[in-house]
Amino acid sequence: MRLRHKPWAKEKLEQHPQYVVAEPENLKGKWHEAFEKDQPLHIEVGTGKGQFVTGMAKANPDINYIGIELYDSVIVAALDRLIEADLPNLKLLNVNAAELDKYFTKNDVDRIYLNFSDPWPKTRHEKRRLTYKDFLKLYENILVDGGEIHFKTDNQGLFEYSLMSFSAYGLLLKYVSLDFHKSGYEGNIMTEYEQKFSERGQRIYRCEVKYQN
Amino acid sequence: MRLRHKPWAKEKLEQHPQYVVAEPENLKGKWHEAFEKDQPLHIEVGTGKGQFVTGMAKANPDINYIGIELYDSVIVAALDRLIEADLPNLKLLNVNAAELDKYFTKNDVDRIYLNFSDPWPKTRHEKRRLTYKDFLKLYENILVDGGEIHFKTDNQGLFEYSLMSFSAYGLLLKYVSLDFHKSGYEGNIMTEYEQKFSERGQRIYRCEVKYQN
Repeated sequence: MRLRHKPWAKEKLEQHPQYVVAEPENLKGKWHEAFEKDQPLHIEVGTGKGQFVTGMAKANPDINYIGIELYDSVIVAALDRLIEADLPNLKLLNVNAAELDKYFTKNDVDRIYLNFSDPWPKTRHEKRRLTYKDFLKLYENILVDGGEIHFKTDNQGLFEYSLMSFSAYGLLLKYVSLDFHKSGYEGNIMTEYEQKFSERGQRIYRCEVKYQN
Repeated sequence: MRLRHKPWAKEKLEQHPQYVVAEPENLKGKWHEAFEKDQPLHIEVGTGKGQFVTGMAKANPDINYIGIELYDSVIVAALDRLIEADLPNLKLLNVNAAELDKYFTKNDVDRIYLNFSDPWPKTRHEKRRLTYKDFLKLYENILVDGGEIHFKTDNQGLFEYSLMSFSAYGLLLKYVSLDFHKSGYEGNIMTEYEQKFSERGQRIYRCEVKYQN
């Protein structure tokens, strides 16, 4: 994604603490306190402009959601959506995914969504891919036992890599589609990227994997 | 594959015992005796007209190959290829894959190739797919520890199913390509189907999985 510098972004995020969690480290182990209802928590790592996570939160009021995004100039767009929708079951977090364990602990999270993550195609950047083994370990440390990762991408190389990485880590492949939009799956919520790529006729790959502990 | 009845096929197979093994149950546990050299054994289950296995045997003289095919009217075409090439490291077997353990025992086989297997798309035929769990068990019982399955297909549904079946069985996904002919892989030997489908511009899927025992 091309990042446009928005010097006012940080201030705007701070002005909406009811939507953008200000001190997430204080909620570690008790995230239900941040929400109206104590119900399962699903997080999206790399939430971008928030179309997916906002859509999911609208469609599933019995689940709490957190959209996590590193770039303040991007997550402000998600904040705009959230202000408009005013959803009690969605929060945003402007933090680095590599530090998830600063904010979450074991059993805090029931499911993780990874959507159209940066493919980092160069081998020397493998460690930055959100499906690299160190990230899978990080996710394991904040998920419930048997927690799941749901992963979508248009990037063939990243999907191939991720299938191998999941397998090497011992995750169970519960579901896989190699042409998701033709799979007959109902109730899919599209990300901004997904909509764009799909309109160009590109395939979307999707899988669901489960920790076997 | 459309099968044409060839009443003379069985007789022709019997006339070439140096190529088509007549009493394979007698070689169980001692397949090296069937070959000139005692070297690793790779088998192709569903060898069809034999283009793949003949090509592999030519390219890899330090490996013994067996092509296994149920239909005598099909395997006679493989026999014709083998008669012409006269390879010391290739045998054919006209038997049912579901009975592999009648002819092979643990450690007999180093690798199994599955190429363009019948997809059996209907759910009620799942048990017939060569990547169904009962077949994975059968393969485990004849392979060496850490033995591998190398699998190619143009059929998206069968490939998706197989990835899930391999994962559920605990196999390690060592390699996967979702568009094999564009992957840069060198030394690929094509099957008859592969050549046909590929010329039509269809994607070929390929993976290598490994038993983790």
